[in-house]
Amino acid sequence: MSPIKMQLSCPMPKMDYDRITLGHGGGGTLTNRLLEQGVFDILGNEILDTHHDGAVFHMNGMMAFSTDSFVVSPIFFPGGDIGELAVNGTVNDLAMCGAKPQYLSLSFIIEEGFLVEDFWRILCSIKDACQRAGVKIVTGDTKVVEYGKGDQIFINTSGVGIIEPKAQIRMDRVKTGDVLIVSNVVASHGIAIMSVREGLQFESDILSDTRPLNNVVMGMIDEFGDHIHLLKDPTRGGIASVLNEIVRDVNLGIHLNEKQIPIDSQVKGACEILGLDPLYVANEGVFIAIVDARSAEDIVSQLRKNEECAHAAIIGQIVADHPRQVIMRSGIGGKRVVNMLVGEQLPRIC
Amino acid sequence: MSPIKMQLSCPMPKMDYDRITLGHGGGGTLTNRLLEQGVFDILGNEILDTHHDGAVFHMNGMMAFSTDSFVVSPIFFPGGDIGELAVNGTVNDLAMCGAKPQYLSLSFIIEEGFLVEDFWRILCSIKDACQRAGVKIVTGDTKVVEYGKGDQIFINTSGVGIIEPKAQIRMDRVKTGDVLIVSNVVASHGIAIMSVREGLQFESDILSDTRPLNNVVMGMIDEFGDHIHLLKDPTRGGIASVLNEIVRDVNLGIHLNEKQIPIDSQVKGACEILGLDPLYVANEGVFIAIVDARSAEDIVSQLRKNEECAHAAIIGQIVADHPRQVIMRSGIGGKRVVNMLVGEQLPRIC
Repeated sequence: MSPIKMQLSCPMPKMDYDRITLGHGGGGTLTNRLLEQGVFDILGNEILDTHHDGAVFHMNGMMAFSTDSFVVSPIFFPGGDIGELAVNGTVNDLAMCGAKPQYLSLSFIIEEGFLVEDFWRILCSIKDACQRAGVKIVTGDTKVVEYGKGDQIFINTSGVGIIEPKAQIRMDRVKTGDVLIVSNVVASHGIAIMSVREGLQFESDILSDTRPLNNVVMGMIDEFGDHIHLLKDPTRGGIASVLNEIVRDVNLGIHLNEKQIPIDSQVKGACEILGLDPLYVANEGVFIAIVDARSAEDIVSQLRKNEECAHAAIIGQIVADHPRQVIMRSGIGGKRVVNMLVGEQLPRIC
Repeated sequence: MSPIKMQLSCPMPKMDYDRITLGHGGGGTLTNRLLEQGVFDILGNEILDTHHDGAVFHMNGMMAFSTDSFVVSPIFFPGGDIGELAVNGTVNDLAMCGAKPQYLSLSFIIEEGFLVEDFWRILCSIKDACQRAGVKIVTGDTKVVEYGKGDQIFINTSGVGIIEPKAQIRMDRVKTGDVLIVSNVVASHGIAIMSVREGLQFESDILSDTRPLNNVVMGMIDEFGDHIHLLKDPTRGGIASVLNEIVRDVNLGIHLNEKQIPIDSQVKGACEILGLDPLYVANEGVFIAIVDARSAEDIVSQLRKNEECAHAAIIGQIVADHPRQVIMRSGIGGKRVVNMLVGEQLPRIC
């Protein structure tokens, strides 16, 4: 398998088994040993260490609560792995609500025979991703299913966080004249996964864009407050599907400018080779912000100061014409309706 | 398949597809249709209906947060199904922390080809279980994996709730002389699952004990407050494994009385036929309470007023002798060490 970010931060101890067995999900000695030597050892913190049936902590305010299951295949891919993706995915869902992600739950469904070494790598990756995003794993669960009844490993994370007092992010705040910003180049995650599956070689590797977006989102909310009307991360279904969900829910239209949508030239080339429309390809480290037109330019300027938003751009606006439709002016000047993804373009993308 | 509680509360509308396809997990039109016609329609409430990336609500106080993935096989079994189990499981984990369960997340990993009719039945069962426990599904996720890469359906639920002010439930409150109470007959869930798998027939059906425990636990905490020192639900690994976890964590011993452990005679007979020790068989509607000796009898009396705790009993006590060991006086008078479950007795039990 091609280039993987090696996790050197937590070397694996010597273990007396090299594969996960059904017993590791039985709730007895083997489960406890796996948790003690693995999960608790790597991810431990004062809340997780209580070993209770749930985590206990104090919360006060409007909070966000989100969940996501991750079934990506392959589980290790250029630019990341399922563990990092699982942390970032829920961190970003919380950030899209305007919340500061704080505590995550972590639940594994492991297929019998899964390599302990790979499990360890994923745990280390989860640890690193948590540190980067500033969140803690506080409760969890491990199940094992028979060989052939799963696919290596599935991960669910759920998370909670308090909403920033300045955030006013709600569907009903979207209004005609608002401006659409995309935070960075699109389609990288989907193409990174697809290139591994199809065995494609490029001049340089196309890496998944999986990353936590909470810090940049918090900074944006802090500076621009209620001028940020809505945030969405265009994962499965790509930006086309997310924008269609928005127009349906707000009963307004969206005008998009194809030329302004940032995309890496290699990713664009790969989309052409694979016959994929980048608007429908999944992203894992990009968000769409719908903002007050008066602040749009300033927001883009501020976003671009962050490495992960270096290519932030205004890509369109909310219009009263054609309610419930996304219409794009193409690179060569024509107009076309951009529909929601029909069916499945890339299964098991996240 | 044998007797199933039929869910008549939500008849299935006419749909133009009868099986779940990969497209239903793609994040586009099909996903949206499945959610609109199914999940949102059945489970909708004012928080879920916002369709945001996360749920937003107010919380103030010490809260509990818990997660569980459910991989039970078969997914429909005497006395319940995977949907009901998934709700009750997380509700009960929260109750074991002394929290009033309030909001749940719901995440599906569905195998391609899964019958929409079965998915509908599970959604209805989830709805009924939520009503019974007084909780709401507020956020969710749906993934679909290829045929052969899952096993019909896996469900993760996570949940949050505020801890009752009177609750003082912590491992460090367990002390010598404390009394062990079990809330009802043990081993029913595991034997219900096993009897379906093994095709066993009994005079009357052995039903899973899956049920929400929050109301009875809240009542107990309300009346006995800090005399309740610890609560645990003995699911996978049975009461033997849970008691061993406790003695390990508190560095004290447990003395158990086999005669006092309540068990249904049919379940006991089935355990003998199957060669299973009921102490290691999973429960889904039973809890262990470790309580101040002065209130133990009163607590049992109060518990027994509830149908779901009709067989509540004192089964042992915390002792200073033999720290980190559970020792049981058997029915015929001898003593034996009860160890944690080694390996796996019944895979895919919850």
